[in-house]
Amino acid sequence: MANKLKIIPLGGLGEIGKNMTVLEYNGDIVVVDCGLIFPDEEMPGIDIVIPDMEYLRENRQKLKGFLITHGHEDHIGALPYALREFDVPVYGTAFTIALIEHKLEEARVSGKRLVTVKPGDHVELGCFKVEFIKTGHSIAGAVALAINTPIGTVIHTGDFKVDFTPIDGEPIDINRFAYYGSRGVLALMSDSTNIESPGHTQSERDIGKTFEHYFNVAQGRIIVASFASNVYRIQQVADVAVSHGRVLCFQGRSMEQVVQIAMRLGYLKIPPESIVKVDQLKRYRDDQVCVITTGSQGEPMSGLFRMATATHRLNIGAGDTVIISASAIPGNERGVSRVINQLYQKGAEVIYNRMADVHVSGHACREELRLMMELTKPKYFIPVHGEFRHLVMHGQLAEDMGILSENVFVADCGDVIELTQRSGKKNGSVTAGGVMVDGIGGIDDVVLKDRKTLSQDGLVVAVLTIDSETGRMLAAPEIISRGFVYMRDSEDLIADTKALLVKETRKFEGADRSDYAGIKAGVKNSLKSFLKNRTKRTPMIMPIVIEI
Amino acid sequence: MANKLKIIPLGGLGEIGKNMTVLEYNGDIVVVDCGLIFPDEEMPGIDIVIPDMEYLRENRQKLKGFLITHGHEDHIGALPYALREFDVPVYGTAFTIALIEHKLEEARVSGKRLVTVKPGDHVELGCFKVEFIKTGHSIAGAVALAINTPIGTVIHTGDFKVDFTPIDGEPIDINRFAYYGSRGVLALMSDSTNIESPGHTQSERDIGKTFEHYFNVAQGRIIVASFASNVYRIQQVADVAVSHGRVLCFQGRSMEQVVQIAMRLGYLKIPPESIVKVDQLKRYRDDQVCVITTGSQGEPMSGLFRMATATHRLNIGAGDTVIISASAIPGNERGVSRVINQLYQKGAEVIYNRMADVHVSGHACREELRLMMELTKPKYFIPVHGEFRHLVMHGQLAEDMGILSENVFVADCGDVIELTQRSGKKNGSVTAGGVMVDGIGGIDDVVLKDRKTLSQDGLVVAVLTIDSETGRMLAAPEIISRGFVYMRDSEDLIADTKALLVKETRKFEGADRSDYAGIKAGVKNSLKSFLKNRTKRTPMIMPIVIEI
Repeated sequence: MANKLKIIPLGGLGEIGKNMTVLEYNGDIVVVDCGLIFPDEEMPGIDIVIPDMEYLRENRQKLKGFLITHGHEDHIGALPYALREFDVPVYGTAFTIALIEHKLEEARVSGKRLVTVKPGDHVELGCFKVEFIKTGHSIAGAVALAINTPIGTVIHTGDFKVDFTPIDGEPIDINRFAYYGSRGVLALMSDSTNIESPGHTQSERDIGKTFEHYFNVAQGRIIVASFASNVYRIQQVADVAVSHGRVLCFQGRSMEQVVQIAMRLGYLKIPPESIVKVDQLKRYRDDQVCVITTGSQGEPMSGLFRMATATHRLNIGAGDTVIISASAIPGNERGVSRVINQLYQKGAEVIYNRMADVHVSGHACREELRLMMELTKPKYFIPVHGEFRHLVMHGQLAEDMGILSENVFVADCGDVIELTQRSGKKNGSVTAGGVMVDGIGGIDDVVLKDRKTLSQDGLVVAVLTIDSETGRMLAAPEIISRGFVYMRDSEDLIADTKALLVKETRKFEGADRSDYAGIKAGVKNSLKSFLKNRTKRTPMIMPIVIEI
Repeated sequence: MANKLKIIPLGGLGEIGKNMTVLEYNGDIVVVDCGLIFPDEEMPGIDIVIPDMEYLRENRQKLKGFLITHGHEDHIGALPYALREFDVPVYGTAFTIALIEHKLEEARVSGKRLVTVKPGDHVELGCFKVEFIKTGHSIAGAVALAINTPIGTVIHTGDFKVDFTPIDGEPIDINRFAYYGSRGVLALMSDSTNIESPGHTQSERDIGKTFEHYFNVAQGRIIVASFASNVYRIQQVADVAVSHGRVLCFQGRSMEQVVQIAMRLGYLKIPPESIVKVDQLKRYRDDQVCVITTGSQGEPMSGLFRMATATHRLNIGAGDTVIISASAIPGNERGVSRVINQLYQKGAEVIYNRMADVHVSGHACREELRLMMELTKPKYFIPVHGEFRHLVMHGQLAEDMGILSENVFVADCGDVIELTQRSGKKNGSVTAGGVMVDGIGGIDDVVLKDRKTLSQDGLVVAVLTIDSETGRMLAAPEIISRGFVYMRDSEDLIADTKALLVKETRKFEGADRSDYAGIKAGVKNSLKSFLKNRTKRTPMIMPIVIEI
């Protein structure tokens, strides 16, 4: 049992989102990241999904802390839920910790131990000695982790790209990865998001030219939509805006909040006199204004969406240039397309990904992934952060690079990967999966299934009122429907349904009370087939029997 | 009033789908195409959306016929609905008419006048003399229309691409477009779908190399997923399969049906002995088998999906090569991604768009659109088949090509574009929009709104039973919920809700019957705020009062 390192992914494998990985050695556990995933269209009414943390509950006495690679939602979003249950410290760089603080405040979780570290810092958590290594990503403050365990070093890249000309002037510390690689790395866990893309991701700096061009030609206001946390992007836009004599106005709640945090911590450097509030904009000519806003994903309540639909005081119109500096996250394509059309409707010029270089990815492409493997030369390889096909492809890439096939672990959430200095294997699995969160609480599969059914053909409620002694009908059956057919246009249908129900209700007469459930089921079935026959629809049927 | 040509798009503008355009001159109307659009995620339970045909109803005596450019659903899908109302002939090429026949049969619409034409044929419909011109598209039998009216020729491209090396050996008849261009074209209506893409669409023939490569290296079965109607794609796959000594097995209802139609009409040429049924496949080695199936969009009931999830007798597994020869239609990205992951899970090798050249578009890119404009040299230009931004961009392209700005009409569905030989203008609009079809019938906005609400937080039904004379409560209130919270875990909540309802029900006691509606509304509001307060959710509330 002893002297084995267990690596247990609780999220982020077989999906892009809710990243979370457990490292366990004897009596010690550390957890890398604690993220959420946004629900897909199969989960109506669900706000977020977080990892199932049952394994941590069962081993809560071993848990030494959370190591956070960066501040994106899919890496920090489940912390408010985790920290309500587990009173352990959380480690991250300044920007990451600031975003976590903000998140905990909003969730009213207080009194937690948040520890700020710098790249190059080491922390000790039980038997684990962890070093934070500077990387690059589409957010400031991203780090990889070198987790030194009693049997060797595990490198976890977090999300990363290899940008040799980053906006903050501090490229990914490849020499530190090389240092560990030369000493010997037991296992590498590496970001698989962009494995499908050949070559090397463009540098963030490359899109500066595009901004420069549009700022040169624009005659009116310029509105740039991007992710609030992409501080480097915002820095580039701010620099070019200021150099073109435009003031900056930040819009959208998360944009305003994140910019404030980033400026306070020195991640974002903008002359304060260049930043104005929305009500000061009228003092400036249109060609002196640059608005930076949320809404690059076409989200209905975002700044850009409201500006495009005249529900924001900044009403976008003819003369304005809108730059959507992001690509659509899978699932958001229609929303983004919709907002672009709305902006065109209002006469704005719209610059987006498909037309111009206004976005680069934050994730390593194949050549960068090869570079990471060559630097670290791991014995074992565990591809992480990807859908199943990405993990398989990344595993194949590792084998092409000379890692032994039996040392590549394409795993699923909950799989236990057990490593010693000599051997590694998958050894069973633990509870893992997603916990759906709707508003403030968890939600059940049955409830979700009902919502899906309801959304398809609606429902029909039939209320039958009978005498509790005799089973005789006491009142005419009531029928109420929602989401089924428009009742006012369906008088015949209603009359016929009522007639059917009167007939069905008679079955209660003189029946034994123990037969009531059966009769009720019969009513449901009759009504179901009657309605299907008449309308070709299968609404949810709810018979309610009231006994007086 | 007289001597004006009205062009009225009833669908396909501001959207990609449900294409339909009215041309009206004095007492005559012809309609180009009659398609459907698939609903988006905002329309739960809706199967299809068809154009609102109110304008045709109001002018039914003028209607001379439907001219169909090709057999895709977004061009023929609303015909079963239209032909139930309008008894006029329908014109199309052999493949188009065969697909329409099939569609009408399935919808049990019979006794219609379907007229088969060939490229080069002319038909007269009232004052309109129509010529069909061969084009190219991702379906066999696509044509453009030269509609000669008393005041000039209108060219409608339908969906098209310029493929000089098509699989059927008959390229788009550019000389015929040139003929009309030299004589003088009054107006051009041209496909805008691919306006965002620079250059020239690849020829269908270009992807033959990719198929050749994978058929050369595959050791096991090859499964190709594509659109059933893409006869050229199927021809290419069939040719390479036969030349590699593989038999062909067609799977998926629409694939089997369309292939049968295409073979009967000579659009598809496959040696009959190469086609086998699924139960004959066991006679062949894996490397002698090629399956062509539906499911390139990840549709849950399709052939490919079922093969990937072991609910089809052809269970895909290790050794199989799956080629998804299509790109994801916007909105289907997640579904396609899901099926690729499932195939990887089963150990198959999967070749898809992002990795290899296995698909080309059927729509003209910018250079082809310029070519069409240069050939036809229209006086007026109306971009069609596109979302709003596509129409605007296509309009800009036309202006760049020298068409006068005031002669370019970026229109909306229902807009009336009125042309004379001298002038053109938008002149008002007619009823237009979408009619949602759920199963067999239309559906109302109220019903749809209810479905959306139901899908978010479910519903709570409260049944209150009172004495019709006194208003006294006769039975304990009943509460039933679906899609809200899991009731078995919520005993406290239920008990408290019942207590609230008992209190509320007392308000009926001694109240005047005319107050009942008000009291009921009060119950609804109390219950709503109570539940929101307790659960942070806002289910649909349905109070039902039973009077005995």
